[in-house]
Amino acid sequence: MSSIVFLIQCTDQKGLVAGITSFFAERQFNILHCQQYTDVEIGQYFMRIKLEDEGTLPHEQLEAEFERFAQTVNLSWSVRYSETPYRVALLVTRASHCPYDLLLREYEGELKCDIPLIIGNHKDLEQMARQFDKPFYHLPISKETKLEQEAAIKKLLTEYDIDLVVMARYMQILSEQFVQEFAGKVINIHHGFLPAFQGARPYHQAYERGVKIIGATAHYATADLDEGPIIEQDVQRVMHDNSPEDLVMVGKDIERMVLARAVKAHIEHRIIISGRRTIVFSEGA
Amino acid sequence: MSSIVFLIQCTDQKGLVAGITSFFAERQFNILHCQQYTDVEIGQYFMRIKLEDEGTLPHEQLEAEFERFAQTVNLSWSVRYSETPYRVALLVTRASHCPYDLLLREYEGELKCDIPLIIGNHKDLEQMARQFDKPFYHLPISKETKLEQEAAIKKLLTEYDIDLVVMARYMQILSEQFVQEFAGKVINIHHGFLPAFQGARPYHQAYERGVKIIGATAHYATADLDEGPIIEQDVQRVMHDNSPEDLVMVGKDIERMVLARAVKAHIEHRIIISGRRTIVFSEGA
Amino acid sequence: MSSIVFLIQCTDQKGLVAGITSFFAERQFNILHCQQYTDVEIGQYFMRIKLEDEGTLPHEQLEAEFERFAQTVNLSWSVRYSETPYRVALLVTRASHCPYDLLLREYEGELKCDIPLIIGNHKDLEQMARQFDKPFYHLPISKETKLEQEAAIKKLLTEYDIDLVVMARYMQILSEQFVQEFAGKVINIHHGFLPAFQGARPYHQAYERGVKIIGATAHYATADLDEGPIIEQDVQRVMHDNSPEDLVMVGKDIERMVLARAVKAHIEHRIIISGRRTIVFSEGA
Amino acid sequence: MSSIVFLIQCTDQKGLVAGITSFFAERQFNILHCQQYTDVEIGQYFMRIKLEDEGTLPHEQLEAEFERFAQTVNLSWSVRYSETPYRVALLVTRASHCPYDLLLREYEGELKCDIPLIIGNHKDLEQMARQFDKPFYHLPISKETKLEQEAAIKKLLTEYDIDLVVMARYMQILSEQFVQEFAGKVINIHHGFLPAFQGARPYHQAYERGVKIIGATAHYATADLDEGPIIEQDVQRVMHDNSPEDLVMVGKDIERMVLARAVKAHIEHRIIISGRRTIVFSEGA
Repeated sequence: MSSIVFLIQCTDQKGLVAGITSFFAERQFNILHCQQYTDVEIGQYFMRIKLEDEGTLPHEQLEAEFERFAQTVNLSWSVRYSETPYRVALLVTRASHCPYDLLLREYEGELKCDIPLIIGNHKDLEQMARQFDKPFYHLPISKETKLEQEAAIKKLLTEYDIDLVVMARYMQILSEQFVQEFAGKVINIHHGFLPAFQGARPYHQAYERGVKIIGATAHYATADLDEGPIIEQDVQRVMHDNSPEDLVMVGKDIERMVLARAVKAHIEHRIIISGRRTIVFSEGA
Repeated sequence: MSSIVFLIQCTDQKGLVAGITSFFAERQFNILHCQQYTDVEIGQYFMRIKLEDEGTLPHEQLEAEFERFAQTVNLSWSVRYSETPYRVALLVTRASHCPYDLLLREYEGELKCDIPLIIGNHKDLEQMARQFDKPFYHLPISKETKLEQEAAIKKLLTEYDIDLVVMARYMQILSEQFVQEFAGKVINIHHGFLPAFQGARPYHQAYERGVKIIGATAHYATADLDEGPIIEQDVQRVMHDNSPEDLVMVGKDIERMVLARAVKAHIEHRIIISGRRTIVFSEGA
Repeated sequence: MSSIVFLIQCTDQKGLVAGITSFFAERQFNILHCQQYTDVEIGQYFMRIKLEDEGTLPHEQLEAEFERFAQTVNLSWSVRYSETPYRVALLVTRASHCPYDLLLREYEGELKCDIPLIIGNHKDLEQMARQFDKPFYHLPISKETKLEQEAAIKKLLTEYDIDLVVMARYMQILSEQFVQEFAGKVINIHHGFLPAFQGARPYHQAYERGVKIIGATAHYATADLDEGPIIEQDVQRVMHDNSPEDLVMVGKDIERMVLARAVKAHIEHRIIISGRRTIVFSEGA
Repeated sequence: MSSIVFLIQCTDQKGLVAGITSFFAERQFNILHCQQYTDVEIGQYFMRIKLEDEGTLPHEQLEAEFERFAQTVNLSWSVRYSETPYRVALLVTRASHCPYDLLLREYEGELKCDIPLIIGNHKDLEQMARQFDKPFYHLPISKETKLEQEAAIKKLLTEYDIDLVVMARYMQILSEQFVQEFAGKVINIHHGFLPAFQGARPYHQAYERGVKIIGATAHYATADLDEGPIIEQDVQRVMHDNSPEDLVMVGKDIERMVLARAVKAHIEHRIIISGRRTIVFSEGA
């Protein structure tokens, strides 16, 4: 079944649900799912509405009519059609566990997106790309060539018509320009439970501090390292007899799961960013 | 802030969200939260809608007008007002951990309900009731007196105007008549992860089977023991070196949490029973 | 069955397990459980050994003989006898959920210790103490009276022969002298997932940062606030639609569980402090 | 660092730890880790002891001397050397998620074993095998050819010198002879939380029953389907709005993790089977 998903945001006001759902009801749309959230602290209203796409209304017309309606109540909105899957680029370096996991989930049909290319600043994962018949671009980086390399990346993103960039343990900090240009379109995985253990070697930091639980955090990349809006986190219990190397190993599974869930939420058009927070509407029906 | 919660169920059809939300919008209600679920397998639509109660419309009138609307689309519905908290009776025997937990949560304001009485088939927990200034009724039971005892319970439930009966490790099976008369109004906690380990001594069964995770299950009581619709479950990892007695101990915490969450969901009017399944709408805003 | 537990620490060296276990085997002790851990990074060896106490050797003689042995391999050690349960003092302020939980677990036999008194800097929990027939000491505190108040606390601890002080959401910072005098004998519960969200209002901090998981941390109190060795942590998933108040509520259950488990580990003589880390030997057989 | 792991089992008796550890101490072995468990219900003692292998004693001599010692206290025992990794065969059918996960973990170094061949009763995963440069044997099966096919499998297991067979969602029931011949050497993953939901389509059973948590179970294969000793289990919370298909998807991640952990425990020589139960010694130092 084809479907259409709208994400909507506006100042909270009476009559919103009725107004929006009536818009679609009048056009004979079957509402498959409708989720909302009101942030009373900031007076903002958020909605995700999923419609059956029976093809009765051309998409352009739907968008034009909805935009007219949106202006009357001052809505921000975006729309995705299930027939146009997200196109996702992977940025990688040497660590293979996260990119492999995403490639397998695309292959298994768990992530309903296309991953048309992989970009690495090292050559190590070229063989992995070949296993999955993906073009691999080797774009090395140094302090001096950072902006050039980013320009090359951007060129590829345009060429491949990319909607979402996933830093699958890329371990580089993107420049402020890059991050602003792709605001809300770059997901990073941090191998620590933010806001604890920011920066380098978080598992070793965690070991030193003697924590009993370690974690990982997927967030949108912003100019402030490890400070972007958090999408998903998970944790695992560890014991005193786990070495820092054990924590790294345990952490790999958390990173895989957390990154996969964050990407899944994004490509199912379930996330709205609100300042430093994210609204992540639940999966399911 | 006073609020009103409607639970609604009907055959799935186009225009439901718009229709229902428009009903409230036309009457100037502020919709605080609106959740829905469509069970496509059985073609049923479920909704929970929470309104701000500004007192503009008398409750009787609201209900009368909604009933007229409901008949046009063939809705089943129920309503609760935050100003009328649920009245909850505890059925207990000798084990104190679950009833104590519920009494404390009432006291702490975590469970926004009234627990006006405690009924025990043994006298052991009379002192606990006294600690919290609750009347305690000792209604012993034997095979011969079962129906008489239940009649005495029912009399108390009526007298105290009880909405919900919680079997807080009561360890007795209620008669079919009782359960049918109070269908959807009796919550039981089973100290096993249903449908595994039904019946007696579930932790000992779990030990014998060598499971690595144990659990507990809160469900509505039905005539079939341990077969009622499940409301909430949780689990805890155990190790080979945990004895059956350890499992009993670990289990007590799971039972407390699971029963408390199930009662909380019920008294927040978040549960709709659908055959053997429950729709439990999420907490929060 | 009576039992004896030794906690042992020393520089790692060959033959330790054999040497120590032979010491007890030669004296006809049945070893019920023996756990060890070698921290290879610092070259330290840690052991917990649990013996059946059949009364064949007077405790004083056992200790004297073990001390002679310990000197030959330069061991630090401590011993506890199951017949002498820990005596635990509760420090409280206004919040009742943690102290209630501990009192109930003592009552239920889940915590095999004695809680002979409760000390509060406010009077709010006097009624709770009365419910459980415990003496309650009201020792108010102000900036000016801090040291006097602590002196009064210490006097009570001596008078009641206290082994362990539990700050059950006491919300006061103990003085450096106090903490040093009772090093390794004061457990605090912090209502945040350390090292994230140190200091005040951690749930509000967590809400602001938009984390998807919140937690609590039990640790030994040191002069550096929230920096002491961590004993136990746990977490709970939260959603975007949980308000700061919801987080506080969810957090209460995490705090209860985490504090109870930390106290349990301490009174079962299962913890060795090693710098900023703790070795917490597992429960069970 | 090379290491040696002994797994030991015998009737419980005084002096065991001292006796066994002294055996190794006298031969100048450094004990890296020593774990034990006494099952008091059946009076059995279990031990795992990990030694540094400095090469001072030839393995044959060590085994001969230990066997002489073992006879004096009537021990059962087995030994593994880290320099000889387990050789693991995968049995697969069409589902790729479990075998892919194991292959990646071998590749990533998370599972320190060799997977020298893959056997499938369908051809679907031949391409997966090729990606990882593994020989793939297509051995189709029908009711009539079952024993012949198993004979062909056994021939391959001998030829490739296999220590462990992993049914990575193989979905076939091995014959009683096969299972007995390889007792304790065949691990199966069941896609349900045993003992609930045995047999076919467990996720659909779980949906029908309306459970709030689903799980998967890794166990040793025995002649009784889904009744073998459980090695590892894990679970995931699900919601009323998850369809049976969602449960299948969620379940895939649980299956991957559970099977990988069970295989890891086995190849680290951390498991002793005791009747229907398993002792799984913990990871770490």
